Amino acid sequence: MIRGLVVTNTTKLVLLSLDGLGGLPHPDTGRSELETARIPHLHALAGRSACGLIRHVAPGITPGSGPGHLGLFGYDPLRYQVGRGVLEALGIDFDLRAGDVAARGNFCTVDRAGRITDRRAGRIPTELCASLCQRLRQIRLPGVKLFVEPVKEHRFVLVLRGTGLSGELSESDPQALGVPPRPVKALAPAARRTAALTNGFVAAAKKALARQAPANMVLLRGFDRLPRLPAFPRTFGLKAAAIAAYPMYRGLARLVGMEVLKTGATFADEVGTLRQHWEGYDFFFVHYKDTDKAGEDGDFPGKVAALERFDTLLPEILSLKPDVLAVTGDHASPALLKGHGWQPVPVLLWSTFCGADPVTLFTERACAAGTLGTFPAQDLMPLALANALRLTKFGA
Amino acid sequence: MIRGLVVTNTTKLVLLSLDGLGGLPHPDTGRSELETARIPHLHALAGRSACGLIRHVAPGITPGSGPGHLGLFGYDPLRYQVGRGVLEALGIDFDLRAGDVAARGNFCTVDRAGRITDRRAGRIPTELCASLCQRLRQIRLPGVKLFVEPVKEHRFVLVLRGTGLSGELSESDPQALGVPPRPVKALAPAARRTAALTNGFVAAAKKALARQAPANMVLLRGFDRLPRLPAFPRTFGLKAAAIAAYPMYRGLARLVGMEVLKTGATFADEVGTLRQHWEGYDFFFVHYKDTDKAGEDGDFPGKVAALERFDTLLPEILSLKPDVLAVTGDHASPALLKGHGWQPVPVLLWSTFCGADPVTLFTERACAAGTLGTFPAQDLMPLALANALRLTKFGA
Repeated sequence: MIRGLVVTNTTKLVLLSLDGLGGLPHPDTGRSELETARIPHLHALAGRSACGLIRHVAPGITPGSGPGHLGLFGYDPLRYQVGRGVLEALGIDFDLRAGDVAARGNFCTVDRAGRITDRRAGRIPTELCASLCQRLRQIRLPGVKLFVEPVKEHRFVLVLRGTGLSGELSESDPQALGVPPRPVKALAPAARRTAALTNGFVAAAKKALARQAPANMVLLRGFDRLPRLPAFPRTFGLKAAAIAAYPMYRGLARLVGMEVLKTGATFADEVGTLRQHWEGYDFFFVHYKDTDKAGEDGDFPGKVAALERFDTLLPEILSLKPDVLAVTGDHASPALLKGHGWQPVPVLLWSTFCGADPVTLFTERACAAGTLGTFPAQDLMPLALANALRLTKFGA
Repeated sequence: MIRGLVVTNTTKLVLLSLDGLGGLPHPDTGRSELETARIPHLHALAGRSACGLIRHVAPGITPGSGPGHLGLFGYDPLRYQVGRGVLEALGIDFDLRAGDVAARGNFCTVDRAGRITDRRAGRIPTELCASLCQRLRQIRLPGVKLFVEPVKEHRFVLVLRGTGLSGELSESDPQALGVPPRPVKALAPAARRTAALTNGFVAAAKKALARQAPANMVLLRGFDRLPRLPAFPRTFGLKAAAIAAYPMYRGLARLVGMEVLKTGATFADEVGTLRQHWEGYDFFFVHYKDTDKAGEDGDFPGKVAALERFDTLLPEILSLKPDVLAVTGDHASPALLKGHGWQPVPVLLWSTFCGADPVTLFTERACAAGTLGTFPAQDLMPLALANALRLTKFGA
């Protein structure tokens, strides 16, 4: 429906995603990370904005970074699912192409009878992982090109490239000890050849790793191909750029057809990149990672500090005078949970036409009373487009 | 589901639709039209009612008057779409019948080679439009009756009446200059005869208008037939009447099977009509246009004044002692936008059983905190019926 209503104009839209934004009250103070932090610019902006809470998947469901961001980009994350193999490949900036099949791999330990004794091979160092991957790259399979890319510790990505491949494969990882890895099975007739190729890779890997204990075997799971997503620029009529220091988020943006801009390692670098490319695009997705990192570490003061660092750079973004600015996150990462949370995430939406709103603080509690209410992530883009006057009337 | 739960009783329900009700804060004062107006009766009623915000189509989507009202009448506006030709016909009180095909027409200007030079023929006066329509009515087509009705300036409505007609036709208006009008094409095999008849009309119109420059040609778009809607009185078990000074809203009410009551040009006339027919019906839809007119004109003080005029007549409606009273609108028309807006629209629902609610002001901001929350328009009728004790239990 949206595509049929889109009109173009010269407005500029910015989506700021603070990864893992939402939190939970600290047991000692009763105040969440957002309620503890000194974030005067965010609070002032919330006072001028329409506020609410975003639910990314469904009540009680904790979103991964993939569905979390796809929702913010306007895609129903239940309809457009991305396999773990694909997400891992995106996460290391691997140039995954249409038709490639990607899987998440683990180096593991098996005993003489081939039974798994450690699913993570004692979490071998990343350097060792890289040299073992180098060894597995020597494997040759008929008619397909093979990529084996190290990730971190015992993790790697396997990619098969060729024609007629399918990701409809069962996993080799039994997720249990004392049993051997399972053969990979085709879950659809069209996947039979890919299953055979994959089992060929596993057999060859077993041979190549025979003397490499503890990393003497591999486990594979999360087989998938790149999903076919409607292109973001075409769907929303926006020339769109992504600015993210972390590869996973660049990969997700590339997946929906945004252009990925080269940037540095810090958020200040990202804001500099935004300024530099301001004239070249209609829409910018800017990703801030520090909030999630501290949340996942269970580091409450660290998350507070990350929010405060973000706040000091917000005026520089505002000085570019975007027509529409949305500030939110892809999921909660409460320090109390040391990981992603299912809680809905605060959102503020500012434009000349965003309307009156009683909210004056950018916190979980305050945003719950906002005029936007609690809404699905995929509604954010239509709201942002409306605020940019980029949608015509539905019906006469 | 609703139809199976409906029971009848002697309660009376009133739906007051303030067209274009919602607004946006004035940049100088930070207060919306509703927050600026002196509307003591509306505020007092909100204090006794359950309040909330109505979303007519989807987040960010600006509803036209058709989908806006169909939602208030209990129909999902995405499921029941009404073409522009039909809405135009309803808007001039044309007695459109099942099977008729209606199109929106423009008089336009073409050059000697037949290329469009002005899609609106210089916005010819309405009187000239009427006399040209009279000329086009002379056209004869085999097996169908033809109606050509003037609207305003260059606009007219074309209606074909006969058996076996179809509205699945492409538009002749290319929405561009320098090219000739397009032939009308059948979008389905069943529409081939209607396409041929329509092209016959266009060819005859071209001949008839040859010396009438600037209005020397016609453009047609928005072909459609009356949609088949479940009848409102049968669905909800209500003898229903519509009171509206403007033809478009009478047409929409007739479309769902309400009886349209004769009334005058002012809202005071409408309230008089309501009083006069109070005993004759279970349900009254009463439409107030002035709020939308001022909003579309960008006239902030005018919209404030329209709200205040409505407020002075509210006690007369209350004095009739309806069992259920809903006050809301079909879409926002913020003066700031000079047109329809996508913002959800305040709603109050009063009955003996409407429940406790913290809202004491009938404004966008206050209603956001109401117990009804933000909800789809088509949920209003079931809520109103429940408050009239006209719905039985679902399940034992």
